[in-house]
Amino acid sequence: MSTYVLIHGAWHTGKELVPVAELIAAAGHKSFTPTIKGNRPADPRSIGLAEAIESIVDYLALNDLNDLILVGHSYGGMIITGVADRLPDRIRRLVYWNAFVPNDGESLNDMLPAQYVELFESIAVQRGDGSVVLPFPIWREAFINDADLETAQRAFRALNPHPIKTLRDKISLKANPIEMPFAKSYVNCTEDISLPHHHPWHPRLSQKLGLFRLVQIPGSHELCFSNPTRLAQAIMDAGRD
Amino acid sequence: MSTYVLIHGAWHTGKELVPVAELIAAAGHKSFTPTIKGNRPADPRSIGLAEAIESIVDYLALNDLNDLILVGHSYGGMIITGVADRLPDRIRRLVYWNAFVPNDGESLNDMLPAQYVELFESIAVQRGDGSVVLPFPIWREAFINDADLETAQRAFRALNPHPIKTLRDKISLKANPIEMPFAKSYVNCTEDISLPHHHPWHPRLSQKLGLFRLVQIPGSHELCFSNPTRLAQAIMDAGRD
Amino acid sequence: MSTYVLIHGAWHTGKELVPVAELIAAAGHKSFTPTIKGNRPADPRSIGLAEAIESIVDYLALNDLNDLILVGHSYGGMIITGVADRLPDRIRRLVYWNAFVPNDGESLNDMLPAQYVELFESIAVQRGDGSVVLPFPIWREAFINDADLETAQRAFRALNPHPIKTLRDKISLKANPIEMPFAKSYVNCTEDISLPHHHPWHPRLSQKLGLFRLVQIPGSHELCFSNPTRLAQAIMDAGRD
Repeated sequence: MSTYVLIHGAWHTGKELVPVAELIAAAGHKSFTPTIKGNRPADPRSIGLAEAIESIVDYLALNDLNDLILVGHSYGGMIITGVADRLPDRIRRLVYWNAFVPNDGESLNDMLPAQYVELFESIAVQRGDGSVVLPFPIWREAFINDADLETAQRAFRALNPHPIKTLRDKISLKANPIEMPFAKSYVNCTEDISLPHHHPWHPRLSQKLGLFRLVQIPGSHELCFSNPTRLAQAIMDAGRD
Repeated sequence: MSTYVLIHGAWHTGKELVPVAELIAAAGHKSFTPTIKGNRPADPRSIGLAEAIESIVDYLALNDLNDLILVGHSYGGMIITGVADRLPDRIRRLVYWNAFVPNDGESLNDMLPAQYVELFESIAVQRGDGSVVLPFPIWREAFINDADLETAQRAFRALNPHPIKTLRDKISLKANPIEMPFAKSYVNCTEDISLPHHHPWHPRLSQKLGLFRLVQIPGSHELCFSNPTRLAQAIMDAGRD
Repeated sequence: MSTYVLIHGAWHTGKELVPVAELIAAAGHKSFTPTIKGNRPADPRSIGLAEAIESIVDYLALNDLNDLILVGHSYGGMIITGVADRLPDRIRRLVYWNAFVPNDGESLNDMLPAQYVELFESIAVQRGDGSVVLPFPIWREAFINDADLETAQRAFRALNPHPIKTLRDKISLKANPIEMPFAKSYVNCTEDISLPHHHPWHPRLSQKLGLFRLVQIPGSHELCFSNPTRLAQAIMDAGRD
């Protein structure tokens, strides 16, 4: 039996990962789905990356979670990297699921193509409250391309405005992921086109892990909605010893 | 219920797509499989690209087809792009299935590796009637690599000599695909090696669509013969809203 | 009915391919799994590439095997290339399964990234008997990433120290694979990360075959342990006419 902590991506909360966590629990593991500070309904959207990481550091300490398989999706890759750097003794393995892999001093924006950075900044200016949202056509075609329209719409309604400062802030790490002393895996969904082909998730970001285990499955960036069963299995294949 | 119009590739006719169209119809949609001018038995093989496109423009007008999901395979990508440019009000979504995506002024040959252009031109010189055929070993190994020999031979016998002028002619468009105001999808068969790896279908050609939905499935360039069921599902996954 | 000869990779023997060969036999074919000289228990680990190739040349002649589908895995690609160059009249088709494809004058090391060459040389220095072994963490994460830990450990125990001279020796060929007059196929497991992404198996090595048939399946470099059934089917899809 292992302990899985699933860290959601931008615009999401832990709640959207509950179906995946329940499948992992049904296979005999413990599983947890905290929501990062900045994505909870009452949080101010002025939150930055350090506070966001700190909120998960606190969650693990408060719940005294150890020997963890810490899983990060997309933006969640920033969070699990920062948490692992702070609490290395609590980690058994890191699992990046179509997730950003930062080195010390990098921001999420540093790993985005310029077109996305510009789009998000212009949306944030329009909104004026420190948050950014995704336009539905991009969500539909490039984030959840493997689902039917009803699923795409329902999932879109579950999204929350994301604090843009967490995308701009550079992470501060004592060690880069390649130097971290525990095992690492990368789960890559092969139809994930949320990042364009010239800036892919894998191998561009996965290679920053050094020796890592690759698990690939069909699916879009939002497999948590389109096929939680396939995703849960992939996370367990990535997370096992 | 949607309306699908399936446009075949070089050397094919609409007849070879009937099994796919029937599966789409069985799922509750209308489906049509016209044959492009130049590929019908009685057509002269001197036909050029503009006439080929015009024949499908006429077909859509004659049958008063609207709100279409217009699907193009391979060379058929040239045709659907030209048709959509002429009849934008009849289109709901373009679906490119391992298809060429031309910008204004480009020919199919412009998107082929030089080795294929030279091969096709030399075959056309030998034939002397304006048409080109595929050598069986290339068909067997690189076009229909996922089928058994009997299927490969049967499908090969269904092919017709293709008017080479349609490969040479540059397309004339008022707008490039990226500027066209309707949704676009790209269906990519992951074992399609009919174009060599340094000139792949996806992402080299798909990226010319700008924002597009990717659907990927296992299969060769000729999945219409080797697995029509899988192909029909992929086309519907690509074509839905 | 065809005749399949399966040539194992480095650190393996023919014995580990018996489950695959049995599945091929159950489908109505003849199948053979010789062990290359240098990998048998009693062989000296000073064996070089020419002797290794010679041992399979002798095996085919001794058993009078003809009209062969000769399949090579990984290092086995060096062997089948050398054997086909020596005995072209006995070959019907070559099948490379995540295998090295050498041209005349190339060594396996010439196709490895420098990091692996250095690692293997340093391990060989430590061992001092002319052989190299794989460290378990690399085996677990990058060679057999799709299996559970028990399978990974059991398979690891079956490995034998590999003669490093066979990796260093340059092959001597009368013709490069692209010039060889029989059909060729490449089986590519899509999660094979035993070679890093900037030195992939396919298309980097497969393209050296010229016209070839691609068969792709999910799986790691060691699909013979993690899913012999899927591998046997892929080999037969690659090997049929």
